[in-house]
Amino acid sequence: MIKYSFKNDYSEGAHPNILHALISTNLEQQDGYGGDVYCHKASSIIKERLNSPNSDIHFVSGGTQANLIVISSILRPYESVIAASTGHINTHETGAIEATGHKINTVEKEDGKLTAKDIEQILIGHTDEHMVKPRMVYISNSTEIGTVYTKNELEEIYNYCRQNDLYLFLDGARLGSAICARDNDMTIEGLCKLVDVFYIGGTKNGALIGEAIVINNDRIKENFRFNMKQKGALLAKGRLLGLQFYELFKDGLYFELAKHANSMAAMLSSEFERLGYTFLTESTSNQIFPILPNNIIDKLNEMYAFYTWSSIDDKNSSIRLVTSWATKEESVSSFIEDLRRLTNEFSK
Amino acid sequence: MIKYSFKNDYSEGAHPNILHALISTNLEQQDGYGGDVYCHKASSIIKERLNSPNSDIHFVSGGTQANLIVISSILRPYESVIAASTGHINTHETGAIEATGHKINTVEKEDGKLTAKDIEQILIGHTDEHMVKPRMVYISNSTEIGTVYTKNELEEIYNYCRQNDLYLFLDGARLGSAICARDNDMTIEGLCKLVDVFYIGGTKNGALIGEAIVINNDRIKENFRFNMKQKGALLAKGRLLGLQFYELFKDGLYFELAKHANSMAAMLSSEFERLGYTFLTESTSNQIFPILPNNIIDKLNEMYAFYTWSSIDDKNSSIRLVTSWATKEESVSSFIEDLRRLTNEFSK
Amino acid sequence: MIKYSFKNDYSEGAHPNILHALISTNLEQQDGYGGDVYCHKASSIIKERLNSPNSDIHFVSGGTQANLIVISSILRPYESVIAASTGHINTHETGAIEATGHKINTVEKEDGKLTAKDIEQILIGHTDEHMVKPRMVYISNSTEIGTVYTKNELEEIYNYCRQNDLYLFLDGARLGSAICARDNDMTIEGLCKLVDVFYIGGTKNGALIGEAIVINNDRIKENFRFNMKQKGALLAKGRLLGLQFYELFKDGLYFELAKHANSMAAMLSSEFERLGYTFLTESTSNQIFPILPNNIIDKLNEMYAFYTWSSIDDKNSSIRLVTSWATKEESVSSFIEDLRRLTNEFSK
Amino acid sequence: MIKYSFKNDYSEGAHPNILHALISTNLEQQDGYGGDVYCHKASSIIKERLNSPNSDIHFVSGGTQANLIVISSILRPYESVIAASTGHINTHETGAIEATGHKINTVEKEDGKLTAKDIEQILIGHTDEHMVKPRMVYISNSTEIGTVYTKNELEEIYNYCRQNDLYLFLDGARLGSAICARDNDMTIEGLCKLVDVFYIGGTKNGALIGEAIVINNDRIKENFRFNMKQKGALLAKGRLLGLQFYELFKDGLYFELAKHANSMAAMLSSEFERLGYTFLTESTSNQIFPILPNNIIDKLNEMYAFYTWSSIDDKNSSIRLVTSWATKEESVSSFIEDLRRLTNEFSK
Repeated sequence: MIKYSFKNDYSEGAHPNILHALISTNLEQQDGYGGDVYCHKASSIIKERLNSPNSDIHFVSGGTQANLIVISSILRPYESVIAASTGHINTHETGAIEATGHKINTVEKEDGKLTAKDIEQILIGHTDEHMVKPRMVYISNSTEIGTVYTKNELEEIYNYCRQNDLYLFLDGARLGSAICARDNDMTIEGLCKLVDVFYIGGTKNGALIGEAIVINNDRIKENFRFNMKQKGALLAKGRLLGLQFYELFKDGLYFELAKHANSMAAMLSSEFERLGYTFLTESTSNQIFPILPNNIIDKLNEMYAFYTWSSIDDKNSSIRLVTSWATKEESVSSFIEDLRRLTNEFSK
Repeated sequence: MIKYSFKNDYSEGAHPNILHALISTNLEQQDGYGGDVYCHKASSIIKERLNSPNSDIHFVSGGTQANLIVISSILRPYESVIAASTGHINTHETGAIEATGHKINTVEKEDGKLTAKDIEQILIGHTDEHMVKPRMVYISNSTEIGTVYTKNELEEIYNYCRQNDLYLFLDGARLGSAICARDNDMTIEGLCKLVDVFYIGGTKNGALIGEAIVINNDRIKENFRFNMKQKGALLAKGRLLGLQFYELFKDGLYFELAKHANSMAAMLSSEFERLGYTFLTESTSNQIFPILPNNIIDKLNEMYAFYTWSSIDDKNSSIRLVTSWATKEESVSSFIEDLRRLTNEFSK
Repeated sequence: MIKYSFKNDYSEGAHPNILHALISTNLEQQDGYGGDVYCHKASSIIKERLNSPNSDIHFVSGGTQANLIVISSILRPYESVIAASTGHINTHETGAIEATGHKINTVEKEDGKLTAKDIEQILIGHTDEHMVKPRMVYISNSTEIGTVYTKNELEEIYNYCRQNDLYLFLDGARLGSAICARDNDMTIEGLCKLVDVFYIGGTKNGALIGEAIVINNDRIKENFRFNMKQKGALLAKGRLLGLQFYELFKDGLYFELAKHANSMAAMLSSEFERLGYTFLTESTSNQIFPILPNNIIDKLNEMYAFYTWSSIDDKNSSIRLVTSWATKEESVSSFIEDLRRLTNEFSK
Repeated sequence: MIKYSFKNDYSEGAHPNILHALISTNLEQQDGYGGDVYCHKASSIIKERLNSPNSDIHFVSGGTQANLIVISSILRPYESVIAASTGHINTHETGAIEATGHKINTVEKEDGKLTAKDIEQILIGHTDEHMVKPRMVYISNSTEIGTVYTKNELEEIYNYCRQNDLYLFLDGARLGSAICARDNDMTIEGLCKLVDVFYIGGTKNGALIGEAIVINNDRIKENFRFNMKQKGALLAKGRLLGLQFYELFKDGLYFELAKHANSMAAMLSSEFERLGYTFLTESTSNQIFPILPNNIIDKLNEMYAFYTWSSIDDKNSSIRLVTSWATKEESVSSFIEDLRRLTNEFSK
């Protein structure tokens, strides 16, 4: 019997406010394809929250869709995008970016975070027309392994990109978690000045579906909706996306939910530390990667769902635990209790 | 003041049953990406309804997405798809099919319906490797201009495709309306034997979002989910799609809603006929295209939203009126009353 | 026994001057990929001949390659190209343009020539992001059916394109023949002011292989060689292309060859006219399309190779006769003699 | 003054036999697009030499073109190709493979050669539809860094591919050099039984232009010419390709030329060894990568053209020297003399 699943942050439906809003507006007639009043309201409230009135906001269904549309809409055919080898576009999108014709230049990074130096190494290796021309940098925040970029790190990347005519794109599938991480010093409104385009992940932070793409650089705004339509991303009932983001942003719900997810992960982390366990990566976001003896992992897996991430040595592996807006403290407490008990048992 | 919009069949949200189901299942933890219990239940109930246990069912967000995934997953790079020039893939998908690398061979058809003869004309014109190789036929039912294929017409196309090694794909964005059209003699379960792949449109018949792709031909089933993921169509919370189709199919709601939409369109049609107006196309589905004097169109447009479709002559145009599961009889009656009054006024 | 083939203008090898130049330079060491001295010399001599020092010149292997590189290098993903339905890119390139992701918007034209009005009709029909955005116009000169654009016609198209932010691309696979057509009033140097990009066909006018792309518009010059390399068009021994164009342009050989081809076609045309035959199209270039009784066609086909182009009625068809730089007057005379004889015989 | 260029094996034109054959057949009328008698003869002679009557032979212009056509014609959209990170498709084709929609899964290899174990590591990491599905293995022989696969190594890869439903593709841009390498134990005819498809490089071994694609696996033969045409690879005067391969294979000239190139490289290698220099890679083919002090490299570069390949430490770098069918022994001797002198000078 599985008591709770820590497999991911999209196991539950949506925050109740969203469902109530769907019901209360259900029979209104609205224009299709994002022309509805809720998309407009959501766009306004997000731009206000970002203090970035000139940004363009577009809503799409999911992260892979956001990534492939943003990247393919910006790059010319021979241009490539630079990413950490752990980047979602490189590992878990079934070649979606290549399917639009573009190479991903990867850099191996233990912490999943690119630096200006990493990017420079790629540029140095690409010198003429026999090679792709790197033109964009893709980063995820928080990363696929739970780490979070500091303001300094982002500024360094940004400056390097500016100086080298590279576009900077931030995949924010878990942006809420990054912004609300306990050691984060970057504001969400600050992003509008540091990246050309990013997206605010809804699916993994309380929405049923949906990511809000924020385009800050004027040069990549033109005709963006053509790209969306061509890739099958313009929903006929766009209201479904607009309404959710309006609910998430009108009173700061988006950040409350992310804080909750992070605090549930922090509760887990603290206990792992207290019990003397180490981690694969230093995460302050809603994904943690503790390293455990395989026999304890097996026992935990009988009670909780989660992914075993990587093998550390013959006897130990890292696991991934993900918390969300919907994770209840009691589920975390239950896990902690079982972890303590198993640690005790097996240490004898 | 607009009394009602007949612009399309996706102006409202979802049938209330769907919203209630979303709420009642909201906090259940479910596997992501279509691995949830509702996708499984929806798939089962659809296959049962289709009496086609060996069909594969996949849920995606919208029609353009369904079309581009189905077509690009089947065709080899040099193969093309044959469509009526009015086909949605040819006119209103921003080149989504071409963006996956494939040419559309088009045939001009006044009624929007292909025949075996049309297809043959394309094949005759494609003889060697200097030309694309037509390998698939795309038809819409009901068509983009409201017409419906008869069983005989479908069988003729099917037989021709079988004999000529062509795949047959039916775009069912408005399949409910086609199946429930008053003069339709084709059953939905019959489709499984006549087309290689089709989709059941949810967005335009009561769902918030979603189309159910039904693959009948074994040769095109393999690894279909890879194609979905690559095109950004595997929703993390796939439950949103499964749950809706389960609600729509568990008790026949899907067909009730389509019947209602059709009957509202029929009410409108009858009145246009009674008043002596003609139509651009013979439609028995939920889209009708009456021809009216431009001055009456202008007056109607002050009270009702709808598209003017095409210019007939200096003084007359066709308009498109679309009804849906949510169209109330009182809205139709109101329109009819205004139409009568205006007809009267302007005929003096 | 076939006395001569009028099937196309690429049946023979290259003009002897070219082969001699290949031999005399064979053992020189030259840089690869177009960095050789002959590509530079050819580029200079062409720009001089065109009186267009700021044009960029690139050499590629063939027409389909030129077309797909030019078009895909210019258009953004959702943009399309407008062409006559007879255009080579639409009929005889196996979907090469669509394979780079772009739709071709076609206009049916009996004479194979687009007008500003035709282009306007396409623009009028493309109004929003649900449709592709036409951004380029593709014309062939001479056309695939032998016709030639007048200066006025080109200016009209050019002006329309300028006013509507459309790029104009001229496929010059048979540009020599067009420029040297007896009723042509357009100069090749004039093209640099009227089209954004065109190519000068070598393969069909005396070269072994090769087309010279001429880019006049600064906005589409950047990084063009990246596109060439990506599409497999940068030949390691680029000298092969440069040397040929240098030979063709250093003394005007290119135009002499085209004139010869045209004059051979004109000899044929005159005789068809004299004998009372009509033509499918009014051609003054090196392709003519006379209409003949099918029984005469059958007899001619026993002695000469050529394509039967289209059926006119039960008893008559059009054929295509193509002459080239290598067509000898004696072959033409022989054909004329046989035509006269057969006409005589069958008219009895 | 540059005495000789060792930059690459495509600095000169073609072997004189080829040019003579071009001249002696120049005015024959031949069918276009590979339908000529020389393509047929070349195809026959190659199949005979390969002792593989059921293989299909196709001629294309260059290596990037061959690679992109072969790979894109075989893979379905979500499938990927595995390559060493040094593979030409990964480094020097401007993203040509990705431009056809496919990801390259790379493995870092110091010697540029893949093993079954390398391939297995990639397969292990690709488990579900969120990742591309590796379906093909790409190897180069000789590799981009001069190494050559042994028969055992190829058999091991082949067996692994068979067991795991992977296609094996060998890039033979320098296949002549590999087959004629002094320690090679693999025959060219043996390749037909060990790889699904490969190509025989002409451009780098005596031809003006051209690679011969050899398809051994029946499953990938169908409609291959459609792919060629779509990618712009069907030359109108295909005779240019056929004739060259006929000349190269009718009397074994292809292998003589490769042997000569290898022996010239071996002369250079022996001297480097004799003088106590080491190499970046162990090459027995026509590309060698000796490591030299930077000051000697600078001096050599004033007299000979070659690429500095990689920095070894502060004072030493590897250089690449490439020999060809056209490299004269006197050029090699001259280089050796200068190398001895400089080694002497700088060692004082």
